Amino acid sequence: MTLADAVLAGDRLSLARLLTRVENETPEGLAALDELFPHTGRAHLIGITGAPGTGKSSLVNQIAIHFRKLDKKVAIVAVDPSSPFTGGAVLGDRVRMRDLSGDKGVFIRSMASRGSLGGLATATAGVVQVFDAAGFEIVLIETVGAGQSEVDIARLAHTTLVVEAPGLGDEIQAIKAGILEIADILVINKADRPGVESTERALKTMLELAHPVQKIFQHHGTYMAVQASAEEMAGMWMPIIQRTVATEGKGLPELLGSIQSHGEYLRQSGNWQKRERARLEAEFDALVQNELVARFRAGLTEKRLDETVDSIQKRQLSPREAVNLLLNGVGK
Amino acid sequence: MTLADAVLAGDRLSLARLLTRVENETPEGLAALDELFPHTGRAHLIGITGAPGTGKSSLVNQIAIHFRKLDKKVAIVAVDPSSPFTGGAVLGDRVRMRDLSGDKGVFIRSMASRGSLGGLATATAGVVQVFDAAGFEIVLIETVGAGQSEVDIARLAHTTLVVEAPGLGDEIQAIKAGILEIADILVINKADRPGVESTERALKTMLELAHPVQKIFQHHGTYMAVQASAEEMAGMWMPIIQRTVATEGKGLPELLGSIQSHGEYLRQSGNWQKRERARLEAEFDALVQNELVARFRAGLTEKRLDETVDSIQKRQLSPREAVNLLLNGVGK
Repeated sequence: MTLADAVLAGDRLSLARLLTRVENETPEGLAALDELFPHTGRAHLIGITGAPGTGKSSLVNQIAIHFRKLDKKVAIVAVDPSSPFTGGAVLGDRVRMRDLSGDKGVFIRSMASRGSLGGLATATAGVVQVFDAAGFEIVLIETVGAGQSEVDIARLAHTTLVVEAPGLGDEIQAIKAGILEIADILVINKADRPGVESTERALKTMLELAHPVQKIFQHHGTYMAVQASAEEMAGMWMPIIQRTVATEGKGLPELLGSIQSHGEYLRQSGNWQKRERARLEAEFDALVQNELVARFRAGLTEKRLDETVDSIQKRQLSPREAVNLLLNGVGK
Repeated sequence: MTLADAVLAGDRLSLARLLTRVENETPEGLAALDELFPHTGRAHLIGITGAPGTGKSSLVNQIAIHFRKLDKKVAIVAVDPSSPFTGGAVLGDRVRMRDLSGDKGVFIRSMASRGSLGGLATATAGVVQVFDAAGFEIVLIETVGAGQSEVDIARLAHTTLVVEAPGLGDEIQAIKAGILEIADILVINKADRPGVESTERALKTMLELAHPVQKIFQHHGTYMAVQASAEEMAGMWMPIIQRTVATEGKGLPELLGSIQSHGEYLRQSGNWQKRERARLEAEFDALVQNELVARFRAGLTEKRLDETVDSIQKRQLSPREAVNLLLNGVGK
């Protein structure tokens, strides 16, 4: 019985082991991913992103608890790209353990950065696939922060939640202009705080600016925006704003309703398939890139590489000239 | 006279034009970069990063103003990876124009995300090289946010400032654990706010945890940590904590002193050359990656690519199997 078979049979220890191997990209882990891939495509992938201080982790816990009440198996993938060295998600894990420990229908996995921009997204995609194949119906992908890498990771999801909170200041509001455009559901958490009305007003204004005059899609790594036709607008999802107080469980049933509505919208409109395709294409692109670089490195001695960087540092070659020299020379 | 020549001669209009071409990676822009590269290596590159709400932009303006008082030519590169679609740095620009407009010794360039993770870092490296060659002695590279991409961009710098502010909450403190390790100088801005003492205490504790038991370096895209010897520790820079109130210019002379001390430390310890090398190597790595992907794409029809993604979506091939099939087939 392979590790993949054991995971398909529901063995938790094998699942934990396989996740580690997938994260570390061991040959066994990669082979198991290939074996599991035909069993994927069933889970509802939900991305949760937003700035620090919005109470994301508590919210993710509450979403998990409420999906458990509907008897769904829930996986949580907590991604922390801001901690390149030490692995930063430990604190969040401890909080989670308290709320969710002992429930066999929940599995939590924290991932820290791999030290390269592409590495984390690829490893996260692999971990999500394992959970999907293992029969977790809901996969919550939580990212800390609101930078480009977090946006890219949120793109793994079918449904993307962007979490806000009242009173985080103007600069934070400005930062959200970009991230708003990827939100299917905007959650104003800590909605018992003063300023919730003005936060909601600001978000509504930004939504009106961002939608529905244009639709934005990603095509082989490039973002494009085109004017949406009246027909297309009629079939488009308008982002929902939802207030919650995660620490008290307030607004959670409504939020779950919105998440499920979005899933139904995706399936009925055919956009589920489109998002699946965009997701798989992005994963394919990242893998191509990693593999090309790995093959290039394998064909190059450490000495040759050092000499090349020497020439650049001595300003004998520009970085671009050095790249062209190596790429046209290597493999010949 | 080429555009590069005009830039070397100090023409501002040519500089603005060239920056646009470099950002857009036009053939003329890339050729000019090669031409300018031998003139680089003189500027002190200073990265400024930190979470939203810390007052980074005001601080960067004040640093520029104070370097101008020392008669240094200053370039500001404001990078905003959080705005993938609309280009987010417009607000900050307007603030800057008010403080710094009319000074010919200052040049400001805002850059938004290019829609791909690697693209922004590469474009930023190019823009920084142009400023360096054009004789700007100080290049301030400001990044919004605190994610992995911001960390990578901050790595472009010789001296990295991480900006904090009192009272931004526990989650923000937790996030900093990773970013602290790249800080040469920790700035507590808005230091007239309540809570400054506890922020400073927390930072000191984190610094003690992070230093100097280990040194961390990047080698071909992988972060490694090794135990530092007593000898190495004696020659290591211990991060400085500096309080400022940027809006009132408070603490700025002291901050500039620390920045210049760090520059001197780098030159005397030989670490200036080491950081230069790490920086050029990272740029080389990014260019290799971009060029490999571009060449792969050029050898592939849109139809072939679509068919491949089809097979993945139908679960006939795993993404990794598809990559191997294409890479082993293309170019044969």
